[in-house]
Amino acid sequence: STFNVAVLTVSDTASKDASADRSGPTIIDILNARDSYQLANKDGSQEYFYKIVPDDIDQIQATVKNWTDGEDHVDWVITTGGTGFGVRDVTPEAIKPLLDREAPGLVHLALSSSLQHTPLAALSRPIAGTRKNTLIITLPGSVKAVKEVLTALFTQDVVGHALELIKGGTGSDRHNAL
Amino acid sequence: STFNVAVLTVSDTASKDASADRSGPTIIDILNARDSYQLANKDGSQEYFYKIVPDDIDQIQATVKNWTDGEDHVDWVITTGGTGFGVRDVTPEAIKPLLDREAPGLVHLALSSSLQHTPLAALSRPIAGTRKNTLIITLPGSVKAVKEVLTALFTQDVVGHALELIKGGTGSDRHNAL
Amino acid sequence: STFNVAVLTVSDTASKDASADRSGPTIIDILNARDSYQLANKDGSQEYFYKIVPDDIDQIQATVKNWTDGEDHVDWVITTGGTGFGVRDVTPEAIKPLLDREAPGLVHLALSSSLQHTPLAALSRPIAGTRKNTLIITLPGSVKAVKEVLTALFTQDVVGHALELIKGGTGSDRHNAL
Ligand code: NA
Repeated sequence: STFNVAVLTVSDTASKDASADRSGPTIIDILNARDSYQLANKDGSQEYFYKIVPDDIDQIQATVKNWTDGEDHVDWVITTGGTGFGVRDVTPEAIKPLLDREAPGLVHLALSSSLQHTPLAALSRPIAGTRKNTLIITLPGSVKAVKEVLTALFTQDVVGHALELIKGGTGSDRHNAL
Repeated sequence: STFNVAVLTVSDTASKDASADRSGPTIIDILNARDSYQLANKDGSQEYFYKIVPDDIDQIQATVKNWTDGEDHVDWVITTGGTGFGVRDVTPEAIKPLLDREAPGLVHLALSSSLQHTPLAALSRPIAGTRKNTLIITLPGSVKAVKEVLTALFTQDVVGHALELIKGGTGSDRHNAL
Repeated sequence: STFNVAVLTVSDTASKDASADRSGPTIIDILNARDSYQLANKDGSQEYFYKIVPDDIDQIQATVKNWTDGEDHVDWVITTGGTGFGVRDVTPEAIKPLLDREAPGLVHLALSSSLQHTPLAALSRPIAGTRKNTLIITLPGSVKAVKEVLTALFTQDVVGHALELIKGGTGSDRHNAL
């Protein structure tokens, strides 16, 4: 399958100056390098699938719901930024109430992988889960952490299996395995 | 002590054809091989302690509450199945609101152990905790994963210590240690 | 920076006989040995920053809120005890509703570190997060576990970075990294 992905950068700074966003474009590059993931809208524009909002719960939620709740919902929403302990960091608090089902296994994988690189990964407060037929994962805001967590999620196509099942695929082998 | 255990298989397929349930009988075999755990009802029947329900929140909750809320409650409820990303998988969503106390340590142990075998273990969404004086743990639906997680839970009698304390035992050494 | 820390021992036994508290004084000793952490009140007394309460949700919450909600709030509240499966263990249930933001990364680090020592660490049910500008972490009640988790939290100054950010410091390097 091919999966539609939307990327949301959450950052007060980048929301005022898009050129300050380094993690968003990193995610887009990584996804573009993989066959199964597409960020382009039907008209070829990537505008719809990549947004920057400040560290504001209402704006985070409105953007994500716009990507998940319609007929033309995306398969996967990746957020980057706002998951730390800064006074303005509220991405997990914005995402959690949107989730129908939480995914502690994906959170565990993300944290385990990051902690193998540095104990400072413990400063991340990730959340993951599904809303309707969309997977939502919150990545940290650092380019290094983004690469580490995505590498873990793509190992043995973990995230591809999740997306296939969320789309309603029988994914029988995998489904029976869970 | 001897602990009474109930096993709930959650599966649309197995609810229509019990012979399709492989993980439930696997759990029963593993428990029967251990001295401290019994599945038999007072009348020697195992019927009461082993049920299969479809992926339906109401039926999962009703069955579990029947095992946890009465005078003759069991010590441990193990569910298997319905913890993945399939569109019908809702076991954690059924169990979570039933819990008085969550047990993230048991979830961490289960996920850590499974992830040592395969990154695909991240597709599981386990939850664990207590309701009244009963421990509830959600296992995946695959025979392989069930064996891996139960092996981890029985290491150094982790689950036995938990059950002893939940029953109200002083378990003083262990209790002081926590 | 220097961080003000308050220590709360949660234990029915120690609430009746303070000399029975071994984990509270252990935490205080560890913090006193570090330059950046102080337990002393302005008047030089440590009374205000070290309390013992029984395993009672209301008393736990009242004490913690007294330390977090005022003008003279502390930077870090550490609780010890009441995180296991004993029938009276309710520390996580008392703390969770107080948190504005949960910190699963710190929980993961604590559990991972403890599980490297013994699988029985899975019997702990830790929670961590922030309330207003205070970090709250629940440690187990055993001296051994307290030392293990604090060692992990002080590795590469994980907890110092968290506290700096929660205080509103720009902590720009670190902040950008998350
Ligand atoms: Na781990």
